[in-house]
Amino acid sequence: MLKECKNGERFEGTVLVNEWKEVPFRQKPGAFLTLTCQDRSGVMQGKMWEFPPQVLNWLKEEYDIFYIRGAVSEYRGTLDLTIEEICLIPKEEIDLTALLPSSPISENELENRLQTLLDKVSNPELKSLLKQFLDHPQWGRAYRQAPAAVKVHQAYLRGLWEHSVRVAELAQGIAGHFPSIDQDLIITGALLHDVGKMGEYSYDRGIKFTTEGRLLGHIILGLELIVGEISKILEFPQELRYKLLHIISSHHGKYEWQSPKRPKIMEALVIHHADVMDAELYQFEQARNDYPDNEWSPYIPSMERFLFLK
Amino acid sequence: MLKECKNGERFEGTVLVNEWKEVPFRQKPGAFLTLTCQDRSGVMQGKMWEFPPQVLNWLKEEYDIFYIRGAVSEYRGTLDLTIEEICLIPKEEIDLTALLPSSPISENELENRLQTLLDKVSNPELKSLLKQFLDHPQWGRAYRQAPAAVKVHQAYLRGLWEHSVRVAELAQGIAGHFPSIDQDLIITGALLHDVGKMGEYSYDRGIKFTTEGRLLGHIILGLELIVGEISKILEFPQELRYKLLHIISSHHGKYEWQSPKRPKIMEALVIHHADVMDAELYQFEQARNDYPDNEWSPYIPSMERFLFLK
Amino acid sequence: MLKECKNGERFEGTVLVNEWKEVPFRQKPGAFLTLTCQDRSGVMQGKMWEFPPQVLNWLKEEYDIFYIRGAVSEYRGTLDLTIEEICLIPKEEIDLTALLPSSPISENELENRLQTLLDKVSNPELKSLLKQFLDHPQWGRAYRQAPAAVKVHQAYLRGLWEHSVRVAELAQGIAGHFPSIDQDLIITGALLHDVGKMGEYSYDRGIKFTTEGRLLGHIILGLELIVGEISKILEFPQELRYKLLHIISSHHGKYEWQSPKRPKIMEALVIHHADVMDAELYQFEQARNDYPDNEWSPYIPSMERFLFLK
Amino acid sequence: MLKECKNGERFEGTVLVNEWKEVPFRQKPGAFLTLTCQDRSGVMQGKMWEFPPQVLNWLKEEYDIFYIRGAVSEYRGTLDLTIEEICLIPKEEIDLTALLPSSPISENELENRLQTLLDKVSNPELKSLLKQFLDHPQWGRAYRQAPAAVKVHQAYLRGLWEHSVRVAELAQGIAGHFPSIDQDLIITGALLHDVGKMGEYSYDRGIKFTTEGRLLGHIILGLELIVGEISKILEFPQELRYKLLHIISSHHGKYEWQSPKRPKIMEALVIHHADVMDAELYQFEQARNDYPDNEWSPYIPSMERFLFLK
Amino acid sequence: MLKECKNGERFEGTVLVNEWKEVPFRQKPGAFLTLTCQDRSGVMQGKMWEFPPQVLNWLKEEYDIFYIRGAVSEYRGTLDLTIEEICLIPKEEIDLTALLPSSPISENELENRLQTLLDKVSNPELKSLLKQFLDHPQWGRAYRQAPAAVKVHQAYLRGLWEHSVRVAELAQGIAGHFPSIDQDLIITGALLHDVGKMGEYSYDRGIKFTTEGRLLGHIILGLELIVGEISKILEFPQELRYKLLHIISSHHGKYEWQSPKRPKIMEALVIHHADVMDAELYQFEQARNDYPDNEWSPYIPSMERFLFLK
Amino acid sequence: MLKECKNGERFEGTVLVNEWKEVPFRQKPGAFLTLTCQDRSGVMQGKMWEFPPQVLNWLKEEYDIFYIRGAVSEYRGTLDLTIEEICLIPKEEIDLTALLPSSPISENELENRLQTLLDKVSNPELKSLLKQFLDHPQWGRAYRQAPAAVKVHQAYLRGLWEHSVRVAELAQGIAGHFPSIDQDLIITGALLHDVGKMGEYSYDRGIKFTTEGRLLGHIILGLELIVGEISKILEFPQELRYKLLHIISSHHGKYEWQSPKRPKIMEALVIHHADVMDAELYQFEQARNDYPDNEWSPYIPSMERFLFLK
Repeated sequence: MLKECKNGERFEGTVLVNEWKEVPFRQKPGAFLTLTCQDRSGVMQGKMWEFPPQVLNWLKEEYDIFYIRGAVSEYRGTLDLTIEEICLIPKEEIDLTALLPSSPISENELENRLQTLLDKVSNPELKSLLKQFLDHPQWGRAYRQAPAAVKVHQAYLRGLWEHSVRVAELAQGIAGHFPSIDQDLIITGALLHDVGKMGEYSYDRGIKFTTEGRLLGHIILGLELIVGEISKILEFPQELRYKLLHIISSHHGKYEWQSPKRPKIMEALVIHHADVMDAELYQFEQARNDYPDNEWSPYIPSMERFLFLK
Repeated sequence: MLKECKNGERFEGTVLVNEWKEVPFRQKPGAFLTLTCQDRSGVMQGKMWEFPPQVLNWLKEEYDIFYIRGAVSEYRGTLDLTIEEICLIPKEEIDLTALLPSSPISENELENRLQTLLDKVSNPELKSLLKQFLDHPQWGRAYRQAPAAVKVHQAYLRGLWEHSVRVAELAQGIAGHFPSIDQDLIITGALLHDVGKMGEYSYDRGIKFTTEGRLLGHIILGLELIVGEISKILEFPQELRYKLLHIISSHHGKYEWQSPKRPKIMEALVIHHADVMDAELYQFEQARNDYPDNEWSPYIPSMERFLFLK
Repeated sequence: MLKECKNGERFEGTVLVNEWKEVPFRQKPGAFLTLTCQDRSGVMQGKMWEFPPQVLNWLKEEYDIFYIRGAVSEYRGTLDLTIEEICLIPKEEIDLTALLPSSPISENELENRLQTLLDKVSNPELKSLLKQFLDHPQWGRAYRQAPAAVKVHQAYLRGLWEHSVRVAELAQGIAGHFPSIDQDLIITGALLHDVGKMGEYSYDRGIKFTTEGRLLGHIILGLELIVGEISKILEFPQELRYKLLHIISSHHGKYEWQSPKRPKIMEALVIHHADVMDAELYQFEQARNDYPDNEWSPYIPSMERFLFLK
Repeated sequence: MLKECKNGERFEGTVLVNEWKEVPFRQKPGAFLTLTCQDRSGVMQGKMWEFPPQVLNWLKEEYDIFYIRGAVSEYRGTLDLTIEEICLIPKEEIDLTALLPSSPISENELENRLQTLLDKVSNPELKSLLKQFLDHPQWGRAYRQAPAAVKVHQAYLRGLWEHSVRVAELAQGIAGHFPSIDQDLIITGALLHDVGKMGEYSYDRGIKFTTEGRLLGHIILGLELIVGEISKILEFPQELRYKLLHIISSHHGKYEWQSPKRPKIMEALVIHHADVMDAELYQFEQARNDYPDNEWSPYIPSMERFLFLK
Repeated sequence: MLKECKNGERFEGTVLVNEWKEVPFRQKPGAFLTLTCQDRSGVMQGKMWEFPPQVLNWLKEEYDIFYIRGAVSEYRGTLDLTIEEICLIPKEEIDLTALLPSSPISENELENRLQTLLDKVSNPELKSLLKQFLDHPQWGRAYRQAPAAVKVHQAYLRGLWEHSVRVAELAQGIAGHFPSIDQDLIITGALLHDVGKMGEYSYDRGIKFTTEGRLLGHIILGLELIVGEISKILEFPQELRYKLLHIISSHHGKYEWQSPKRPKIMEALVIHHADVMDAELYQFEQARNDYPDNEWSPYIPSMERFLFLK
Repeated sequence: MLKECKNGERFEGTVLVNEWKEVPFRQKPGAFLTLTCQDRSGVMQGKMWEFPPQVLNWLKEEYDIFYIRGAVSEYRGTLDLTIEEICLIPKEEIDLTALLPSSPISENELENRLQTLLDKVSNPELKSLLKQFLDHPQWGRAYRQAPAAVKVHQAYLRGLWEHSVRVAELAQGIAGHFPSIDQDLIITGALLHDVGKMGEYSYDRGIKFTTEGRLLGHIILGLELIVGEISKILEFPQELRYKLLHIISSHHGKYEWQSPKRPKIMEALVIHHADVMDAELYQFEQARNDYPDNEWSPYIPSMERFLFLK
């Protein structure tokens, strides 16, 4: 793993090249390559002082997963990789989880926490819907693999799953203080509120927006998916259906945040707050990890403020 | 028709009672009824000085279509109806178009203008979609009957149809100046951009929001409907599908106006402007009709300004 | 109690007169009085057709608590009080809790729930601060009596206490999902976030804003109070003090909502969300109580929307 | 022309130097010059490794049009000019159209399209005004030469003319759907709405804001100009004058976009939309030209979004 | 004067009728008139129980200045006028200052204060411009008579003059603390910043917006007027001209307040603040006059707050 | 002083190192240091090509005041310092005023202008409060030393003092035009409105935000300080106290600018405007100093515009 290498050591392994540039030498003709290399442990800047023309072609054709060999050295206090050899990896040999970061919470734990939540749902139609969705060969797998964001919060594999479970747990705890809230709808709505993100991001290389993600967004993609799933369940009650779709439509809470509706039922209001809190508190925790010795984080654009980390 | 009655004449006919109140007499016990009566020609205030208790029960049970008899008299410069007799109409005898106002443009003319637009669409999938939708036993009928708004613009029967045709004509004209715009997509998007209004409003009595209209809004209801229709067409191209759904999603143009996306393709941008212009210019024309002698309209809340009518 | 009287019954008791008007008769000289009467059970419109001149003087001098006698009769479907006799009540005989509504949660229950929360606080300085504040002869009593708002949410006696306990319970539950949050600070901050409302509202008659409330607001009044209380505690840690004051300063969450700071610590963020959720969900519950048969609430200005009540 | 040169070729010609910097060598004393060179075909970065001191003086005195000689070579995949010789061009020999880009639409075509529009105007005062303005020795020439913007849309010579004609054509087409709109006023207003840009930008070198442009803006400069022109026409009707001035004042449509008034007549509303659409659709077309192979444009700040280019 | 009449007295005099309504009797046929009567001392509600048909015609033809006779009586604690006789006043006999309120500051005092300001201006072109404007037969008179607003601040005759002098005095005092500010430009700009209000309001009856006021607003009307006046002065320096026009354009300070430019010179910034302060502090003084015994004003919509009056 | 050195001269003296970086050599191993050096005369970039490892340790431990020796040479038209020797200065030998810029107005002059203002205050409690505060061993000294901002306006030693005196002078002049304004409150409020800045910024090295400054802001820190000072004065009138605290709370004028209240008394309104004007006009003066030859300033982010400097 890249992050385990120390100054003076050698590295061999598979990396994802996120960005690259051909940089001309300043005082002689020709150019060298800079390559931003990533595996699941993190990111390291690489340089390749000499390279066969073939490499440039690969990069221009948007190949981005390579096997590389090189030496690690310190430079400005950070480590840097001088790449000596680089070769292409056949598509069928690529293992995504080796290249992208994943949730710090294991699959096992997430599955257990998800199961605990499911066990609490007693409404038969919601139970069916959840089961059908989570056992769906395509959705069930993607739901457990997709990231929750391109950046900002849980931008890693299993991020959507982690975020959904956390929001459901939070929302369910909050709802416990209000007897008139429907807990089954809370859990179902929370687990499904972001399913459109499976289509909004692609993550077979780095995490990126898809065309349908940009044209429609995860709220509409999620609605479309859930409308389709509900249609397979006989006699799903009309009002329950509207409420569940309303939760998805309104979970961003404000028009300016691209929610076409604002919460008009208690369950939607609670899920909206749980969603915002999970995303924002995640950023506090992240800032504490990233700057363990700081009193204050740098300016966090997504929260428009500095965070106090003590 | 109510609007044809003059001071001193008698009225007999079917009306929709929009609002009612039981008003106590000021200097004696008891109360009289005020009833806001409407037929397709307009609205008139009615009073019923004496009434059998049965009438109050009908009104409390939300019956609102009655056959009435009474006398018209002038009062404060406006006409007023003194109701002498009132009786309930069986549901099966109700003719909606006699009670609600309709578009000033006839069905015939709208059908012709619609056909002219359809004839210009050559893309086979869009052609199929339009045909399938407009010939659909339920949608085809509702599309030609629903209003375009609860108030503000084209708030009458056939309003959606009228608005859709006008927006399509406008958008097509605009698009004609830009060769890279896809005219087929313009016409299809414009004709279908507001179809969710069929579910957002009910209009079997006055025009009102439905529960699903308030919980989801016409953008999402329209997307759901079109997603369903497209799914019946074999090999509808994926990109074309996203573009059409994007047009519906973004036709309000701004997040604050409840569009979850802003126009990112030329066709969506043109349809957004055509939609706004048709709605706003309608209000100018309406103000001129309502205040034929005024230089200035009263303050128009939906446009946040006074309009100059000369 | 006013709300217990039925059509045709007589009423005798103490009321608070919220508003009054002298209304001239329409067709004869002279005037009658309308008086909006309130006791803790609710509000009833009163009329006094004849009255000694003394009554007008009392009202003009802003006396507003009276002993009245009269008859209840139905009028437009609502009950109405014809007042026959009215007399002033000496200040020392006034019992506020008979005149203003109170929280539906009993003092006993609130005290128990408060105690449960206090028992969880182990930080010695925060424990001291809470004890000192809640046992303070003036603050302790006012905290348990003040309303939480002039209108909108918990606008009744014990409303501040009820709201504070609920926010503390909610916030503590939420914080339980985030190990790095300081639960002692959460409970203390939540219980004290609104203490400035004791000075922002007066409630010896109806609930009204005070001059200091309007000039400074409950955030600043609360900060001032807590700064004073902390100063009595030896060696209260500086950083803890800033954090607690920051929680109070930022609990409205946004500048536009009159918070001079936005949450920059996790505890402040959680308390902000708990505060908003308690106030907003209260309004859902209130709307359900007020309109038990409605599908939809009327437009709720404080939430800028209609609420779905099914 | 700069854009026609290929790797390894030599260049000789006149260029406008938009920006320049003296860059110190990193490992030896002294400095070289970087010069951003432009002719009407486009922009190329130049470097001058050695230069007589005179060149620095010229640049510091803000001379910016030079005759240069040098060699073109590839560098980071883009072409780059190594300048060997540079000399000043006398003012009288400068040909602006060789240095700045121009509208892709020829003068001939624009003049024809303008004439077609003028022929449709029958109102005698508007006809006089247009003729007088377009034949004015100073305005007529400047109108046909000025750019429409500093950047964003039609930021090239003849841009104002092109934009005005396009807006007039668009607005006229839209107005054709609304019988109560005055077509003469539409054409006149559209052709004149932006005339203040002749004073807002200078374009004798690159396109820049003038002092009066920054202090007053093109709306006010345009109003001033048209007020002056109208004053030369006998008995120009007062109401028509107000309407035309209102169109100019309100054509940005919103206060935040620096329009002191919002459209209050139909003609102003249509011209506002036509203006926005022409500017925005231009950016779509521009993005397609600039990124012919992309699915998505980069982020477009003036539109605050990414554009889909397929 | 209306405000001098007491209960039981009779009134005879000329009034402006601002509003009128024909109100049907509740329990008999026929109707009476209510007339809102105003002279410069204030406003009083009038009623006319019987009236010749001619009166209704006058009112419908928008005559609004009458000679009336009647009796004053108290009613709901306010005085009320029972009109017995009403007749039309020939146009040539109308004296506007008897009917509309005027500035509490006398003409003499305003003229003196204006003269003091003028004496401080030494720049020859600005001096000429002020003299030419203030001595202009039409502008000089209108400037000294027009109101400063329709409501909100100085909404009375001589209000523009009073406001202009006060803003000039304020701005000049502020500018005195900043040596680089041009005092001549401050005084000229302050005296002329609102001259467009002469055309924005009509005040031959009550104070109302004109058509040109609504279509163009006082900033543009003022610019037009000053552009015209400057054009009569030989060799008025170009830069000074732009600065003065910029002051007028930017004096509202923000786009949302309909300023097409924001202050970019010190003089414009000072005049903007002086203008806002004069208008806002006027409202404090007005509220103190209107509610001499109150601690707090009612809610003041134009300032969006309650004012503390102690 | 740094700013006095010329090309080719040597420099010896004490500097504050604001920022530093270790920059690797491009074509050889190892790195050099860049150090941004500052004394009260200004800032100069320094480079140290070789350095003992000890220097790096000092910098990493956040030592930032050093005695340095080196040579000044010109580089890209600006001067640059090649540092040859650097050594640490013992804390007790540091003289802050040699390192940070100070107000251009001398202590003497500020003290005189302050005294002139104090002499005008006759209200005994406000007089006591000002004296007590200004003679306080800690506050009196800090008030005369603290900066008024981190950047933007008066970001130098004595900046708070200078700003406070200027605002008081300005506000007092403005208030002189309004007889009902309390001049004593104006002067006291203006002198004390920003005292919280003493705690919001630290300035023992460069000017930086403190933790309490970021968590609470200078409005709340100032309120806390003044509440404490007032509490030492016997019988300070309650209403006067609220007004003074209100002035501090509302001096930013808008919620979005972090004022929890908006001005509700005349004195607060005037101080708000004086505060804004002093800060904004300062930026005009600053821009004129920084760009003495420019017609226009560069874009000024804090004012969101370009300033005209002629």
